[in-house]
Amino acid sequence: MPARFLPGVRCDTVPSSSSAATSIDEEFSPLRWRGDCLELLDQTRLPAAEVWLRCTAPEEVAAAIRRLAVRGAPAIGIAAAYGLVLSTSGAESENLAEDFAAAARLLGSTRPTAVNLAWALERGRKVFAAAAPDGRDAARTALLEWARSVHADDIAANRAIGRHARALFAANDRVLTHCNAGALATGGYGTAIGVIRAAFEAGCVAQVWVDETRPLLQGSRLTAWELRRLGIPFRVVTDSSAGALISRGLVQKIVVGADRIARNGDTANKIGTYPLAVLAHRHGVPFYVAAPLSTLDADTATGADIPIEERAGAEITEWHGAQLAPEGATGMNFAFDVTPNELIAAIITEAGVLRAPFDATIAGALDTSGRR
Amino acid sequence: MPARFLPGVRCDTVPSSSSAATSIDEEFSPLRWRGDCLELLDQTRLPAAEVWLRCTAPEEVAAAIRRLAVRGAPAIGIAAAYGLVLSTSGAESENLAEDFAAAARLLGSTRPTAVNLAWALERGRKVFAAAAPDGRDAARTALLEWARSVHADDIAANRAIGRHARALFAANDRVLTHCNAGALATGGYGTAIGVIRAAFEAGCVAQVWVDETRPLLQGSRLTAWELRRLGIPFRVVTDSSAGALISRGLVQKIVVGADRIARNGDTANKIGTYPLAVLAHRHGVPFYVAAPLSTLDADTATGADIPIEERAGAEITEWHGAQLAPEGATGMNFAFDVTPNELIAAIITEAGVLRAPFDATIAGALDTSGRR
Repeated sequence: MPARFLPGVRCDTVPSSSSAATSIDEEFSPLRWRGDCLELLDQTRLPAAEVWLRCTAPEEVAAAIRRLAVRGAPAIGIAAAYGLVLSTSGAESENLAEDFAAAARLLGSTRPTAVNLAWALERGRKVFAAAAPDGRDAARTALLEWARSVHADDIAANRAIGRHARALFAANDRVLTHCNAGALATGGYGTAIGVIRAAFEAGCVAQVWVDETRPLLQGSRLTAWELRRLGIPFRVVTDSSAGALISRGLVQKIVVGADRIARNGDTANKIGTYPLAVLAHRHGVPFYVAAPLSTLDADTATGADIPIEERAGAEITEWHGAQLAPEGATGMNFAFDVTPNELIAAIITEAGVLRAPFDATIAGALDTSGRR
Repeated sequence: MPARFLPGVRCDTVPSSSSAATSIDEEFSPLRWRGDCLELLDQTRLPAAEVWLRCTAPEEVAAAIRRLAVRGAPAIGIAAAYGLVLSTSGAESENLAEDFAAAARLLGSTRPTAVNLAWALERGRKVFAAAAPDGRDAARTALLEWARSVHADDIAANRAIGRHARALFAANDRVLTHCNAGALATGGYGTAIGVIRAAFEAGCVAQVWVDETRPLLQGSRLTAWELRRLGIPFRVVTDSSAGALISRGLVQKIVVGADRIARNGDTANKIGTYPLAVLAHRHGVPFYVAAPLSTLDADTATGADIPIEERAGAEITEWHGAQLAPEGATGMNFAFDVTPNELIAAIITEAGVLRAPFDATIAGALDTSGRR
């Protein structure tokens, strides 16, 4: 393990872009830069097939984000960063600044809830502004170096999150997780699954309960796929099973990722997260959110201010083209819900384990890391 | 509406078997007796196809119950009653008592949680014991008359449940229900859907939220099918959406059915019911259970004493033969969970609306109806 991952080393001391490149290659990642294009593991095809998509233009990246070929707040942010690199692929005769601005707008319009997307685009704009006066090649080189560092930083952050989380676990814990907050949702290693992975390696996880996560089954399709690769024992359950499992004493910890965390700690995450937090609270089971600092949004005061994406109802009423509900039935499909801070035992970040009062601890973590 | 359904008329004054026959025909039912066989609407085929299965032997009824071609606690009880009739179809040379006992054992072994099944079999044994000394034809005639009365009584009970429930609703309520507790789950009319139907006819239901109810989608497949026939507006949601809907103020009432209610009011119902009750409690939304008295089990002290069926994990990891999770992934599939009585605002029965303390009100309802 590289020295920068040692306990006590703060995330903001992390990577130069050259060491970052090594770091990306050390870890399975659902995104990879290949010469002049971004390749994405098409997550809509998992677990049946492992198909990599080649994206040579920002429009292709935006389309992949929209249709969830790449998903998970951190992974969306990284994909957008590489998408900005692709905006510089035009001919010298074209307007570089216009191409870049159009790409940033397009990528920013894909999904509203994950703040990592806006975070990456904002930083990308600064990198571009500094390099663009030196021409297209300079802009491209600077953006690629930056995108790779965003990517490597995310992996490093996830490893740090896992390291910080270990002390929260006890021997033979059974851990429940929702959706997929693993390597597939990030640059690599994962947030919630990173936590589980680190705790498992420390001998503290007996079994994982994998919520299937309707409607698109990111749990049974993706989290199960990852845990199988990692050799971590798991069983898949319906999203509505948590009450029965918790009340039978079969769940010692719940760990989820996040799409956006308001500055008071309220957390938007995949629909179904809030009910888990309510159940955990009732039964005294610790409910943890694992997320990099890039998911904390100092500009959002509370959960009520987080925009929640509503996706097509057909994701619920159809499955691979087959009708699950009667003809004419419509679905209502909020993609995320908001868990209020009082239900969260801790937010595990690369800067450490943050606890209530979250206003103060989140502000402290952001200030210390120079992220605001 | 027949006089016996008027408010204030107690359910135990209900049907003679001759009027019962009329009552069955007045209402859509997923079960129908045709000459010498029981026909069941195959609920595994809905909503794509409406296929009726012919059962001429108890073994066929048992198989239909096991594979959920007929499901819902009251409907299972009625199917078992007709199944006992079919046990008398053997030749005169065969042992009538042995045939009957074997059928009762087989039917009783199909599913453990719904108490209506045990309830029906216990009563069927008494009918048989009284008539069997007069021979096979007498036993068959008595059992058929009794089975039809069980069937008609259930419809009458459901109509009474709906009538009692109306006063609980206010104009423009949006009502959430889980699984299917409609005509398809009963002799006809439905329990939870009967309540919704009665409240809708009284102008009190603006819209129904239909939980899809994984893994077998009794909500999106069956409840949506029924509400569409009834012309009641609805939208299908994932089971994990309730938290978001309730916290946005989009749910004024929750109504569910029951598979078994202990004598303290603890209620076993489809997995996912308990999380709904916990969410309802947190947000001050009334959580109602609608069930006939035949679902109340005076022999079960608390929810902890209710046997909970565990079904095949493949119901979660596969869909119509297609793999949803990676090869080798296993599911854990509790079919029911238990909602503790303190989360239940009222249990709506044909004897009236029962409230806490449930020990006393349930005992009173059972005593008054002569059911214990």
